[in-house]
Amino acid sequence: MGMVGGGAGGFIGDLHRKSAALDGEVHLVCGAFSSDPAKCAQTGRDCFLDSSRVYPAWRQMLEAEAALPEPERMELVSIVTPNDLHLPVASAALEAGFHVICDKPVARNLAEALKLEQAVESADGLFAVTYTYLGYPMVKEARRRVAAGEIGEVRKVYVEYLQGWLSNRIEQTGHKQASWRTDPERSGPSGCMADIGTHAETLVAYVLGEKISSVCALLARTIEGRPLDDDGDVLFRTESGVRGVLSASQICSGEENDLTIRIYGDAGGLEWRHGDPNTLWQKAQGRPATRLRAGTDQDYLSESARMHCRTPAGHPEGYLEAFANIYRNFARAIEAHRNGRDPDPLFDYPGIEQGVSSLAFVDAVLNSHANGHAWTAISHGSASQ
Amino acid sequence: MGMVGGGAGGFIGDLHRKSAALDGEVHLVCGAFSSDPAKCAQTGRDCFLDSSRVYPAWRQMLEAEAALPEPERMELVSIVTPNDLHLPVASAALEAGFHVICDKPVARNLAEALKLEQAVESADGLFAVTYTYLGYPMVKEARRRVAAGEIGEVRKVYVEYLQGWLSNRIEQTGHKQASWRTDPERSGPSGCMADIGTHAETLVAYVLGEKISSVCALLARTIEGRPLDDDGDVLFRTESGVRGVLSASQICSGEENDLTIRIYGDAGGLEWRHGDPNTLWQKAQGRPATRLRAGTDQDYLSESARMHCRTPAGHPEGYLEAFANIYRNFARAIEAHRNGRDPDPLFDYPGIEQGVSSLAFVDAVLNSHANGHAWTAISHGSASQ
Amino acid sequence: MGMVGGGAGGFIGDLHRKSAALDGEVHLVCGAFSSDPAKCAQTGRDCFLDSSRVYPAWRQMLEAEAALPEPERMELVSIVTPNDLHLPVASAALEAGFHVICDKPVARNLAEALKLEQAVESADGLFAVTYTYLGYPMVKEARRRVAAGEIGEVRKVYVEYLQGWLSNRIEQTGHKQASWRTDPERSGPSGCMADIGTHAETLVAYVLGEKISSVCALLARTIEGRPLDDDGDVLFRTESGVRGVLSASQICSGEENDLTIRIYGDAGGLEWRHGDPNTLWQKAQGRPATRLRAGTDQDYLSESARMHCRTPAGHPEGYLEAFANIYRNFARAIEAHRNGRDPDPLFDYPGIEQGVSSLAFVDAVLNSHANGHAWTAISHGSASQ
Amino acid sequence: MGMVGGGAGGFIGDLHRKSAALDGEVHLVCGAFSSDPAKCAQTGRDCFLDSSRVYPAWRQMLEAEAALPEPERMELVSIVTPNDLHLPVASAALEAGFHVICDKPVARNLAEALKLEQAVESADGLFAVTYTYLGYPMVKEARRRVAAGEIGEVRKVYVEYLQGWLSNRIEQTGHKQASWRTDPERSGPSGCMADIGTHAETLVAYVLGEKISSVCALLARTIEGRPLDDDGDVLFRTESGVRGVLSASQICSGEENDLTIRIYGDAGGLEWRHGDPNTLWQKAQGRPATRLRAGTDQDYLSESARMHCRTPAGHPEGYLEAFANIYRNFARAIEAHRNGRDPDPLFDYPGIEQGVSSLAFVDAVLNSHANGHAWTAISHGSASQ
Repeated sequence: MGMVGGGAGGFIGDLHRKSAALDGEVHLVCGAFSSDPAKCAQTGRDCFLDSSRVYPAWRQMLEAEAALPEPERMELVSIVTPNDLHLPVASAALEAGFHVICDKPVARNLAEALKLEQAVESADGLFAVTYTYLGYPMVKEARRRVAAGEIGEVRKVYVEYLQGWLSNRIEQTGHKQASWRTDPERSGPSGCMADIGTHAETLVAYVLGEKISSVCALLARTIEGRPLDDDGDVLFRTESGVRGVLSASQICSGEENDLTIRIYGDAGGLEWRHGDPNTLWQKAQGRPATRLRAGTDQDYLSESARMHCRTPAGHPEGYLEAFANIYRNFARAIEAHRNGRDPDPLFDYPGIEQGVSSLAFVDAVLNSHANGHAWTAISHGSASQ
Repeated sequence: MGMVGGGAGGFIGDLHRKSAALDGEVHLVCGAFSSDPAKCAQTGRDCFLDSSRVYPAWRQMLEAEAALPEPERMELVSIVTPNDLHLPVASAALEAGFHVICDKPVARNLAEALKLEQAVESADGLFAVTYTYLGYPMVKEARRRVAAGEIGEVRKVYVEYLQGWLSNRIEQTGHKQASWRTDPERSGPSGCMADIGTHAETLVAYVLGEKISSVCALLARTIEGRPLDDDGDVLFRTESGVRGVLSASQICSGEENDLTIRIYGDAGGLEWRHGDPNTLWQKAQGRPATRLRAGTDQDYLSESARMHCRTPAGHPEGYLEAFANIYRNFARAIEAHRNGRDPDPLFDYPGIEQGVSSLAFVDAVLNSHANGHAWTAISHGSASQ
Repeated sequence: MGMVGGGAGGFIGDLHRKSAALDGEVHLVCGAFSSDPAKCAQTGRDCFLDSSRVYPAWRQMLEAEAALPEPERMELVSIVTPNDLHLPVASAALEAGFHVICDKPVARNLAEALKLEQAVESADGLFAVTYTYLGYPMVKEARRRVAAGEIGEVRKVYVEYLQGWLSNRIEQTGHKQASWRTDPERSGPSGCMADIGTHAETLVAYVLGEKISSVCALLARTIEGRPLDDDGDVLFRTESGVRGVLSASQICSGEENDLTIRIYGDAGGLEWRHGDPNTLWQKAQGRPATRLRAGTDQDYLSESARMHCRTPAGHPEGYLEAFANIYRNFARAIEAHRNGRDPDPLFDYPGIEQGVSSLAFVDAVLNSHANGHAWTAISHGSASQ
Repeated sequence: MGMVGGGAGGFIGDLHRKSAALDGEVHLVCGAFSSDPAKCAQTGRDCFLDSSRVYPAWRQMLEAEAALPEPERMELVSIVTPNDLHLPVASAALEAGFHVICDKPVARNLAEALKLEQAVESADGLFAVTYTYLGYPMVKEARRRVAAGEIGEVRKVYVEYLQGWLSNRIEQTGHKQASWRTDPERSGPSGCMADIGTHAETLVAYVLGEKISSVCALLARTIEGRPLDDDGDVLFRTESGVRGVLSASQICSGEENDLTIRIYGDAGGLEWRHGDPNTLWQKAQGRPATRLRAGTDQDYLSESARMHCRTPAGHPEGYLEAFANIYRNFARAIEAHRNGRDPDPLFDYPGIEQGVSSLAFVDAVLNSHANGHAWTAISHGSASQ
C-alpha cells in the first residue's frame, strides 16, 4: 500500500496506517505524505520506509510505483488528504491500475462524486471508502437482525452524531483539522453534514438495507463568520417509507464523537451507541431488553458479527478495530480479484455506490435548506445503476 | 381535596392520591370517582372516605361541598378525568370558589384552553396543571444552571419522549387508557403530541425559561386505522432563536417512558434523562463531565433543587416524589393565598399559562403538519398576556 | 400510628412518616418526637396533629393512648430513635398491647435483641423492622428467581454497601446523625457493620432464602479517635455452603448509598444495584444478559414484584416507595391479625427473626475480628426456634 | 520478533501478533508456533513468514536465529505458551542474548519465577511480562493521580476480576484453553488466582505504587473434580497499610472479563472498569463525580495517559491497544538499550519484578488458604532487591 497525505502530526494518516497494519494483511511500502518535504521525509522514517519510496508528490508516486516490477510495487493507494484531492488522486490512481481506498466523503460534492464513480467503473481496480462505523461487529449484527425480521417491519429510525470540537471558532487558532474542514474550497459546500452527517446517513442505509429517499433539512452556521454548516437536523423517509430523524452537530459543547442509532419495527427495536460499541440492545414491548455483546465466542451472534471480532467477549474492541475491518475486508476483496475469485460477501466494505449516495444525500440536504426546508427527493439513479 | 375521576382500576387517580398524601399537606376528603356507581363507591372505601362524601357525579360534589361549612369543605378539586372533562369540571369548580389542580393537557384543544384561561382569570382560586417532570429536583437544577449562565448562551436543544405501549393497536383490546387516548372526542385532535409531546415541550420551556415560537412538524399515524397521531418529530425555534428537535412517539416498541433533554450553550451542556432522574450531567468542551446528584445534603445544588428532595444523596427518589412536589407546592401556594401572602417562588408549579402554551404548541404542530410541514409560528399572545 | 423519636430536623422520622402516608393505609395520630419539648411540639404541628396527642415522653404516650377508647387510640408504635431506645420502647409498647415497627438494627447488641425477641413472643402484637431494601420490587423478584431455580444452584454472592459520609470525622462538627452513630452507648459495639452491614446481610438472607452461618471478618476504625468500626469486610458461608464476600464501609469518599448484590449459580447470575433500583439483571454464560424492569404492567415479573410497584414500567420508584412497601405490608398484616385472618404471604415484611439474625451476624463479625479474624460460626438457635 | 507458541486456532498468539503489529515498531520475523508441524507451518503462512524461519521447535529457533547476521536476526522472543514453558524458553532465550516478552504469569510458581529472575539479572537482554491492563491509558492516569495525592492518603481498595467461562467443566469438552489452565502440570498450583487474580494484584500494585504485603485468602474449587482453584477471595494489606479486598472468579456465570478497581483515600476516590476502559471516575465527598476520558486531545490528563492513546476522545480504544502499548513501550526500551540510552520512564512496562511479585502473592494466597485462612505475609525480599 502507498499512502497519499497523512503527514506526521495529523490524526487520520496514522489511524489508517495502524488500522491497515493490525491484521498483517496490508503493508505500507511507500507514500507521498505531505507537500512539505521535511514532513514527508519524517513520516517516511517514522514508518520505517525505504527513503527511495517516500515521494515528494502523489503524481510522482503513481508514476514511479507503476514503473516498478509487479511483485515490488504497491497494489493499493490509500488517500487520506482533505476532500479536494480525493477526486484527482483517486482517478489518477485507478487509471494507473491501482486499487484505491479513500477517506470519506469521496469528494467535495455530488458532481465530483459522480465523476469518480465513472472513473471506478472504467477501471479494473477496486474502490473502498472508509465509513468506519460500518466496520463495527455490532453494527453488522444490527443489519443482520433487521434483515432477518427480528424487529418486524421497520417504522422509525433515530440517528445522531454529536460532537463539540467546533463549538468555538478554533479554525482561527491554527487548528489544522478545523481549518480545512471549515473551508469550502477544500471541504465542499457542506461542513458538518458532509463530515459526520454522512456517517449517520451511511449507518442508516447499512443497517436498514435501503437508502434515504427524501429529506426536510435545517442547517445552521452557529459560529459567526464560519462559512459552512456546523449543525443540522434532517427529517427523512427511506425508500420503503420508514420515517427518521438525523441530527449532526459539531457545536454540542462537551460531546465527543457520539454516533447513536435506534431503529423500531412493529416487533421490537435495536439500539447501538458508539460510546459502548461492543453492545447492541434488542428490545421488544412487554419483554425484557437483551444486551447482545461482541466476541468471537458469542454463538448467538451472526457469523458476520463474529468474523469482525478478534477477541472473546469482554475484551473491548474499538475504533481502530472497526477501521481495520474495512482494510482487512478490502484486502481480501483485492486478493479475490487478483485470483479471479468472487469476493466473500461476509467480508463487506463500503464502496463507490455508498460514496455517491452520501453526497447525493448532502446535496438534497443543502437544497432542502436553501429552499425553505422543503421536502426534497434524493435521486439515487446515478450512472452506475 | 376532592377528586373528579380516578376510579379504582385506573392508574392516574391512584397516582394523584398517593402523591398528594406523601407530604401530609393535602388530604383527600371527598370524590366523584366514576360514573359507574359501584366503582365510585369502591374507590371511596379504598380511600377510607366517609361515604357521605363519595358523590355519584362531579356537579353534585361541587354543589354539596360548597354548601358545607368552610372548615369542613374541600378547598381544592383534583381533576384526573380524560381531557374532554377538563374544561367543564375546572370551570365549574373555579366558579364555585374552589382551587383546581388538573391533569395535562388542560383541555382538548387551544380554543378550550383559552376558555379555561378566562375562567382562571375570572376566579379567585388558583389553578395548577400536573406537568409532572417539572417537579423533579434535577430539572429544577437544570433550569437554574441555564439561568445562571453556566452553559453560556444556549444554542441547541434535543428533547425526546419515547414510549412503546401503542406500538400495537391495543385500543381495540379493551385497554382503557389506550381507548380514550386514541379517541378524538375524548382526547382532542392530537394523540401522541398532546399526550407526551407536551411533556417535552413544557420541559424545554421550563429549563430554558422561554417558549417555543415556531415549529416544522411531521406527524404519523403509524397503526392503520388509528385516528390520532402516535408519533411525531418537530424541528423548532424558541423565542430567542435557540434551535431544537423534539421527538415524541408511542410506537417505539420496547421503550418505557423515556423523556430526555440535552441543552447546549457556547460554554457547555446539560443532560437529564428520566430513566436516571436523580442525575444531571454537566459537560463542557475540554473538561471532564460532572455528574450532579440530587439530595437534601448536596450543598453544590441550588436551594431550589434541594428543597424538592426528601432524602440525602443516594436514596433514589422518583416519579411519585416529582408528582408530590407539584402537589406540595400548590398546597403551599393555596396556603399563602388563604393568608393573603405572596407565594414563595421557590415552590413553583405549572399553571394555566403553561397549560395554554402547550395547546398552542400542539395547535401549531397540527397546522404545520397539515400545511406540508411548513414552518409555523406559535402565537403566545393569549388573553392573559 | 404513634411515633417515638423523629423530631423535626432529623431525616429518619420524616422518612417514616412520608412512607407510612404514601398508600393511605397508615395514619399518624400521635407522637413523642423529642425530649426537647419545643422540638416535639413543632414536629406535632408540622404533622397537623392534635396538640393533645403530642406527648413529651414515650412512656406518657403509651399510657395515655392505652387509656383512649379503642377506635381512637393508636394501634401501632413506630420507633425511630437511636438504637439504645429500641429495646425499652418496643418492649413497653408490646406489653401495652400495641404493634411495633422499629428502625434497624432492633437493638444495640445480640443480648438486647434476644430480650426483645422474648418480648415479641410474649405479646399479642406484631413486630416489624424496617430493613428498607427488602421492600424493593426487584429485590423480591430476585428472591423469587433464586427460589425458582432460575440461576441453578447458588455458589457465590458478592454484596457491598459503600458510603462516604463518615470519611472525615464529622461527628465532632455537631452532625447529629454522625454523633450518635459513632457513640457506643447509643449505637452498640459496632458502627458501620451494625448500621449498614446488616442491610447487606439481610439482603443476602432474603434473596437466598437462607442465613449466613459463618464469617471471617476484618473491621477497621479508619478515622483516628473514632470508637467504632467505620469499615469492614467479611468472607462468609451460608447454611447451604454458598460462599460470599460482604463489604460495608462509611469511609469511601464520594460514594452515596451504594448497596449492590450479585449472586451466581451454576445456571446464571443476578445483579441488583440500589443506584438503579428498578432494574434487575439476569445473566447466563453464553446468552445475552436480560434487563428486567419493575412495573405494574410487567407480565414477566412475579406477582410479588408487581404487587410492590405502584406505576407502570418507566416511572422510577425509589427509596420512599420501598419503605412504604414495608409499612403497607405491615399494615395489612395488622389488619389480618385484627380480623383473625392469616397474613397474605405476598405482603411480607422483615420481623423479629431477621432483627435477631442481624445482631447475631454482627456479634460473630465482632468476635471473628477480635479473635485474629478466625472463622466464626453464627448461632441462629435463638429462643424463638 | 520471533514467537514461541501461538499456533493457529489459539487466541493468545494472534492477540500478541496483532498488538505487536499495530504501531509498526515490532515486526514478526520468525516463529516456533506449535509442536504440531502442520499447524506450525500454517501459522507461518498466515503470518506471511519466510518458511525458512518457521521452526519446528523453539530450541532450533533460538539456535538458528542466533547464527544469523545481526541485522537479519530477531532481537526479541515473544513467549505465548502455557506457563510450564515460560521458564525454560525465557531462560534459554535470555542466555542466547535475546530480549524476552512473556505472557503472564511468568512461571508456574514462585520458585520458578525466582529462577527466571536470576536469569534476567545475569543476562544483557530485557524482560517484559504482558500484564495487559497496565497498558490502559486510564490505568496510567489513575496511578498518576494517586501519586499526585489527588485522593489524599489511600485507605481502601476494592479490586475484582470476574469471569464465567469456567462455570461448567468445559475442560472435559476439548476446550484447549480450559484444558491447560486447569492442569497443575502446565499451569502450576493455582488456577484462577494465578491466571486472573494476578491481573488484579498487579493492577493494585501499579495504581497504588506499592505492593500487597499480607493476605487472608479463601480459595475454592467450585466444580467437582477440577484440580485447581476456580474462585477466590483475598483480604489484604499493602506495605503502607492500605486495606483491600481482591476477588477473582471464573465461575460467575454470565460475566465476561470484568476487572474493576476502586480506590479510596481521605480526599476522594477513583474507579476504573474494564467494561468501559476509556473512562476513569474521580469522586470526592460533597462534590460531583467527574468522568475523565481517554484521548490524545484531553489536556487535563497526564502526559502519561495521553501518550498511551492513539485517537482523540470519543474513539473507543480497547484491549488490543492496551496490549500494543506494552509492546510499543518494550520496543522503545529495547531501542534505548541498543543505543545505550536510559529508557524513557513515560514508556513503562511490567518487568520481572512484577512477574516475581505476582507469584509471591499467589504463593502467599495458597499458604493462607492451606493454613486455615491465616493472615500470611508476602516476602518481597527476592534476589533482585
